[in-house]
Amino acid sequence: MFEILSLKNGIATVDGFFCDAINCGLRPDSEQGDLAFVRSDEVCNIAATYTTNRFCAAPIKHALKYGKSFEGNFVLINAKNANAMTGQKGIEDIEDILSHLPSDLNIVNPVMSSTGVIGYRLPKEKIIGGIEKLDFNAKNSDKAANAILTTDSFKKELCFRVKLENGDSFNIAAIAKGAGMINPAMATMLCFVTTDANVPKDDLQELLDGAVAESFNKISVDGDTSTNDTVLLMANGKSGVYDKEAFKVALQKILFELAMLILKDGEGSNKVVAFEVVGAKSDEEAQRAAVNLSNSLLVKTALFGQDPNWGRIASTIGASGIECDEEKLTIYYDDLVIYSSEFPELDSEREEKAYKIMQQESFKIKCDLGLGDGSYTAYGCDLSYEYVKINAEYRT
Amino acid sequence: MFEILSLKNGIATVDGFFCDAINCGLRPDSEQGDLAFVRSDEVCNIAATYTTNRFCAAPIKHALKYGKSFEGNFVLINAKNANAMTGQKGIEDIEDILSHLPSDLNIVNPVMSSTGVIGYRLPKEKIIGGIEKLDFNAKNSDKAANAILTTDSFKKELCFRVKLENGDSFNIAAIAKGAGMINPAMATMLCFVTTDANVPKDDLQELLDGAVAESFNKISVDGDTSTNDTVLLMANGKSGVYDKEAFKVALQKILFELAMLILKDGEGSNKVVAFEVVGAKSDEEAQRAAVNLSNSLLVKTALFGQDPNWGRIASTIGASGIECDEEKLTIYYDDLVIYSSEFPELDSEREEKAYKIMQQESFKIKCDLGLGDGSYTAYGCDLSYEYVKINAEYRT
Repeated sequence: MFEILSLKNGIATVDGFFCDAINCGLRPDSEQGDLAFVRSDEVCNIAATYTTNRFCAAPIKHALKYGKSFEGNFVLINAKNANAMTGQKGIEDIEDILSHLPSDLNIVNPVMSSTGVIGYRLPKEKIIGGIEKLDFNAKNSDKAANAILTTDSFKKELCFRVKLENGDSFNIAAIAKGAGMINPAMATMLCFVTTDANVPKDDLQELLDGAVAESFNKISVDGDTSTNDTVLLMANGKSGVYDKEAFKVALQKILFELAMLILKDGEGSNKVVAFEVVGAKSDEEAQRAAVNLSNSLLVKTALFGQDPNWGRIASTIGASGIECDEEKLTIYYDDLVIYSSEFPELDSEREEKAYKIMQQESFKIKCDLGLGDGSYTAYGCDLSYEYVKINAEYRT
Repeated sequence: MFEILSLKNGIATVDGFFCDAINCGLRPDSEQGDLAFVRSDEVCNIAATYTTNRFCAAPIKHALKYGKSFEGNFVLINAKNANAMTGQKGIEDIEDILSHLPSDLNIVNPVMSSTGVIGYRLPKEKIIGGIEKLDFNAKNSDKAANAILTTDSFKKELCFRVKLENGDSFNIAAIAKGAGMINPAMATMLCFVTTDANVPKDDLQELLDGAVAESFNKISVDGDTSTNDTVLLMANGKSGVYDKEAFKVALQKILFELAMLILKDGEGSNKVVAFEVVGAKSDEEAQRAAVNLSNSLLVKTALFGQDPNWGRIASTIGASGIECDEEKLTIYYDDLVIYSSEFPELDSEREEKAYKIMQQESFKIKCDLGLGDGSYTAYGCDLSYEYVKINAEYRT
């Protein structure tokens, strides 16, 4: 048994972690930072998950030289430039930049993480100049959380204290960024998790992979998968405390809540919708249908228009290629049956109820295929004019 | 050798074909028709391709009782109601409606085709009432072409005369509708083709399948596949003329040109873009990348914004899971190299050129993966505010 308390603190309130951010000129004319770091004074066990995009960015190629799990204590993060499609030179730029970190900090295996536009070399001089302005003994969680944002409209930061039955406790905290290009095909954004739990190396990667599968891999803003997606989990062991089940639950909870914040902040998104598919022939078939629902333009625009047009839900399931039967299908909006073969036509009473459900900031669309035990839930958002505006104008 | 002439005529100018349309009340307060027919006075060889959506609509289930290829001479078409997800009753409605066709027309194996909202029974009385108002000996191609439209902004109608070297000739004509829900996973819209070519039954389906693969299956407006997609090809043989190669080329040309008209009229679309992928490990890998490009929201919004942000092209290729290598990739906008590993960064001169190319109504994005001989071209359009508006408000 254990208890999870939400704290109003940041990633650097976890014992032994430090962070800061400054503006080094990547965001011109802005107070917001563009260069941040997270470090631990002691060497951590680190686990990571990265994008599955074949054109993964230079910082990921660089970090992968240590393997997905490694020992280290430092990550430098920049916004506005993804350092992707920059070839070998992009990796050399990182090595050069990291060689300018202070030598008195006992930095081991430092890595970089980048987000922004693809196809441009990092402005190395600006970043190296910025390193000198960072306070490496600061605990400016708030600044770091803000500096890593791109099209996000608010910062995403959570901190939990986990109390075990015997009175022991550990902390886990995380910051994330990500508003568009969020697709269930790996982590899909940047996320940095710090913990003082004493997690053994072997457990760390396994627990992170599992938690990412249940959180970031279940959300979709626009079905695109970026070149830079990274989740980095740093465990410095300072609390001396470890309970595998408690850590697993806390990690999953923090990543899931961040995933929901990312969806809520999906570019131009107004509502978060859970697409729960049950009764499928297999979990894989349920997953295919649920993910397709969360990505369908027609479903997403109907959500924006608050139009209880369940035909688009059915059509998307049918188009996903899985086994399904219109006689056995039931579609619910929250607890309201909006389609079953017994009464397919929407009368005005049910339509009115459906309309009210759709006006909520979040609700559930549940599809029972009535064929088996397979189930999966994916999470998505609506598609608004604002999404188009943001993405038509992103670079300019 | 043969020659293909474009005629400014409609589907009913093909010898032996008749068509008409009226408004039977499915489009209230409108001059536009909502109920149309196409018929031949003699029995035709008919070939068809239908949606791959597992929830295919009642008219398709009904027509499939004759098989994909069959002999017949009549199709009744309604707009505004898809007769989809209506179960066995939806099929019975069709049988009832078709039983009201005039008995003096020698109608053999009549079928129906529907487009519109999913999940409502056909307003049978209105349609049966409308049948009485249709002129079954009319050649009102224009009315029929207009009646089948939904969110389309213009009618799609083409007619070719094919002249063989020996002086013989035959005609082929077609109408189509389709503006959204267009995805390369089968025909994806409604299309009715009439010809007086004397095509043997065995060739007809083969040639139609091939032509659909090269036309409607290569275009995408929004990646969704409808429940009602149908292409129906009726050959009455009245010309007595048949040349397989000439017919194949003419059929492919008419379907491809209609496909481009559909893309041009894609909901809220401002430009048509060809996504040509070459140098892939296989044609299948090229196809996967090209189709993903034509469906990517980030690519589509960048096209709308006329932003030469080739990073989104690269990212989408990388996310498609095919084999690729950033050192070997070259991306062209028309003939302009916009990315190669030799000069990844876009200088202002090339950016200016790229911007001019993107301002065109149609252009080509070519991606050479540099790995093999696989190639495929998919066709897509941009995503505008207007698409969101149309689809947020479609039903209301």
